[in-house]
Amino acid sequence: MYGVILAGGSGTRFWPVSREQSPKQLQQFFGSGTMIQNTVQRLLPLISIENLYVGTHQQQALETLRQLDSFAFSPNHLLAEPCSKNTALAIGLMAKIVEEKDSEAIMAIFPADHVVSNAKKFSQALKKAEVLAQKGFLVTLGIPPTRPETGFGYLKQGLELEDSEDTYRVDRFEEKPDLSKAKKYLEQGTYFWNCGIFVWKASAILGELQQHSPDIHLQLETLMGCLQNSSGKLDYLELNEKGCKLFSSLPSISIDYAVMENSSNVVMIASDIGWNDVGSWNALDEVCEKDFKGNILTGNILAQDCNNSIVHGQNRLIATLGLKDTVVVDTQDALLVCSKERSQDVKKLVESLIEKGCPEGRVPATVKKPWGSYTNLDSGPTYLLKRIEVLPGETLSLQSHKYRSEHWTVASGSAEVELKEKTFHLKANESITIPLNAKHRLGNPGTELLIIFEIQFGSILDEKDILRYDDRYGRH
Amino acid sequence: MYGVILAGGSGTRFWPVSREQSPKQLQQFFGSGTMIQNTVQRLLPLISIENLYVGTHQQQALETLRQLDSFAFSPNHLLAEPCSKNTALAIGLMAKIVEEKDSEAIMAIFPADHVVSNAKKFSQALKKAEVLAQKGFLVTLGIPPTRPETGFGYLKQGLELEDSEDTYRVDRFEEKPDLSKAKKYLEQGTYFWNCGIFVWKASAILGELQQHSPDIHLQLETLMGCLQNSSGKLDYLELNEKGCKLFSSLPSISIDYAVMENSSNVVMIASDIGWNDVGSWNALDEVCEKDFKGNILTGNILAQDCNNSIVHGQNRLIATLGLKDTVVVDTQDALLVCSKERSQDVKKLVESLIEKGCPEGRVPATVKKPWGSYTNLDSGPTYLLKRIEVLPGETLSLQSHKYRSEHWTVASGSAEVELKEKTFHLKANESITIPLNAKHRLGNPGTELLIIFEIQFGSILDEKDILRYDDRYGRH
Repeated sequence: MYGVILAGGSGTRFWPVSREQSPKQLQQFFGSGTMIQNTVQRLLPLISIENLYVGTHQQQALETLRQLDSFAFSPNHLLAEPCSKNTALAIGLMAKIVEEKDSEAIMAIFPADHVVSNAKKFSQALKKAEVLAQKGFLVTLGIPPTRPETGFGYLKQGLELEDSEDTYRVDRFEEKPDLSKAKKYLEQGTYFWNCGIFVWKASAILGELQQHSPDIHLQLETLMGCLQNSSGKLDYLELNEKGCKLFSSLPSISIDYAVMENSSNVVMIASDIGWNDVGSWNALDEVCEKDFKGNILTGNILAQDCNNSIVHGQNRLIATLGLKDTVVVDTQDALLVCSKERSQDVKKLVESLIEKGCPEGRVPATVKKPWGSYTNLDSGPTYLLKRIEVLPGETLSLQSHKYRSEHWTVASGSAEVELKEKTFHLKANESITIPLNAKHRLGNPGTELLIIFEIQFGSILDEKDILRYDDRYGRH
Repeated sequence: MYGVILAGGSGTRFWPVSREQSPKQLQQFFGSGTMIQNTVQRLLPLISIENLYVGTHQQQALETLRQLDSFAFSPNHLLAEPCSKNTALAIGLMAKIVEEKDSEAIMAIFPADHVVSNAKKFSQALKKAEVLAQKGFLVTLGIPPTRPETGFGYLKQGLELEDSEDTYRVDRFEEKPDLSKAKKYLEQGTYFWNCGIFVWKASAILGELQQHSPDIHLQLETLMGCLQNSSGKLDYLELNEKGCKLFSSLPSISIDYAVMENSSNVVMIASDIGWNDVGSWNALDEVCEKDFKGNILTGNILAQDCNNSIVHGQNRLIATLGLKDTVVVDTQDALLVCSKERSQDVKKLVESLIEKGCPEGRVPATVKKPWGSYTNLDSGPTYLLKRIEVLPGETLSLQSHKYRSEHWTVASGSAEVELKEKTFHLKANESITIPLNAKHRLGNPGTELLIIFEIQFGSILDEKDILRYDDRYGRH
């Protein structure tokens, strides 16, 4: 069986930890890894790493690969999408890729940022699904609802299949219901949550796409011809310029709308696999351990007389007193305090921030780069102080700046600095000044993390003031 | 009339903005100045600046003087106390100082961190008090209570004085009551809040101290002999070593306990002067303007569907959603989120922090120094990054460090650096390295604020690793 992890979401409901440029699946909210790491970990007993594929936005490609490095995930199994186009197009292209490798391949689709807590039932359901997919069905998992949830789509159970327990035809796909409908669904016992996990033959889903979504299917062959290894250091899969244009022009539609709702070939395995979409901060209540007062506290926290609250911090001290059903999320540059029942509306709040032009709405305080990351620490009218971390063996582009000079001091690790065609080696407590317009490059030749403090000076201090001459990650 | 402002409090209920080392009276919560600046501003129409005195803890002496600089307050009218000893001792010593200057002096005592919003009634009450003090009474202001407050002491109204309206003998001083008592006081209409504003002849209070608190009175003459001008640049009043020892050995007792409760000479002027002790965060409700939803929002804040909440921030973005009756206070290194009704208990919370050894309980993120301030921005096992601000014309001590080297980069302004007996002049974007054990000194010779980023390197990075050879502020 092949596995495809869809990791294209942004998870704005988890702002300020999750932002457009550092989305939910790349964050660690609980457990031992980030959400995508936990997803891979969960699949490994069922699908070998050689058969796993990941689709994500190109902005997240390198960080996603970095997070999957410890699993020996093959970079060219990652498809970097030029823009977000919902699931139908990504699944179609992935099916093509998998089918090309193995024309009989069965592929399973998994969201990158959900939780499945019952490993045994999950495994059983997937094995059952594999058998059904072999017979040509489009198989989906149906989760028995435990509450009248209005945030999910539902599957209406049809006739039971003869030779497979808890397996049914799907009568209808129901969109997110209102509360009264959701209550009826729950009472009737014949509606199941649509959890976004699907199993099918690659050839079967392609056939269904051809029938129900010919506009997308028609272009898949062309898109396949546009796939190339990325020009940077890590050769993940990306589309060439023509492919990106084509991809961007195609409809943004979910596989549910594009295929599942229209196909007569869909079956559902009903199984309580302990699924949770971890859709917003209050969902942590269902997936995290709580203290005896019902609190979930992460970070440097002193909580007095607080109940059923979620406090998620980093280094800063957070003291809370007498809170009930409150969510506090602290990051370096932005703080959220929210009543728990309004967790869903964090999405709208982030939309307001973006409308107002607040950079904190999209960009995280620590900006990930192919070579590491940077964090703004302080700024004034004519200066900007950054902490720059360069990963072992990585190198920034050869570049120059028109409007700013820079002063670098090594705090930790060792740096190799190319400046005006000379090379300097700096260790902790050593510094160098980069004049206006000077070609320079910073690298970490060591085996430890390099941390430098960069102070920029100039009348214009903007990330866009960068002229790149050479870049190992293909950025020009 | 002479005025004495008592500015020795720490205001821990206003944590994390107010901390032991940066107390409430030196903070700006509303209006145009800090609380002590607002207090001085309020008194100036009634008492000339030449007749104003301030008592404070020696730790706050320089910052207090800096805040009063624009009023042309005379530094030698500030008495720096070596430790906190409540009000009786400070008032006794101040009475001695004032009496020495003018044996007939009438002095009025004011807390530094309260609000008085009715200037006209305040002025009328003080003028009336002056007349009564002239006659030898100890005069206090009684505030008509508006709620069954359990956080204040009360004055029980006695016989009305014949020739002065709204003026009464005080039958009793009542300690902070429980709620049922407070309700009775409110109903009876003969109890008034004790607001800590007193007016009397210096000679009268000294006479009363002699009678009711001889242990304190007996030492005042000796303490007077121990007063000296401080050895630093600004010559405020301090006690010499002998005086400090004596001061520290004397009882810590309020003037209420020491004198007022025992004297038969006390009268009260009942006046609704718009007094508020601004005792905790929820008190801002009574002294600040609110938005139409009852919120008080200060800082970079997006509040959606919040009611009756107080959000007090600095630069960091704070987004709040669906909060009710909640207090959010954000500072660089510590965050408080608290239900409004628990505001009083912030004091206990801070005590817990101090017990646990959290430095954030006492020390603010930006530590004020005689020459300016410093703020820790980042740290690792072997380095520490600080932002240092040096005020125009100020100079740090000539010093050296045994365990750390330092690298300074000027971000803004101009620096004069003395290093191993050579002098260097640095401007923005210039830097210098201070080796281990090297004698060095940093000054700001310019007229603008000097901002430098200091990176410390070493295995021990501690404020105590400092050897001072010369210091214009008298620190050795």
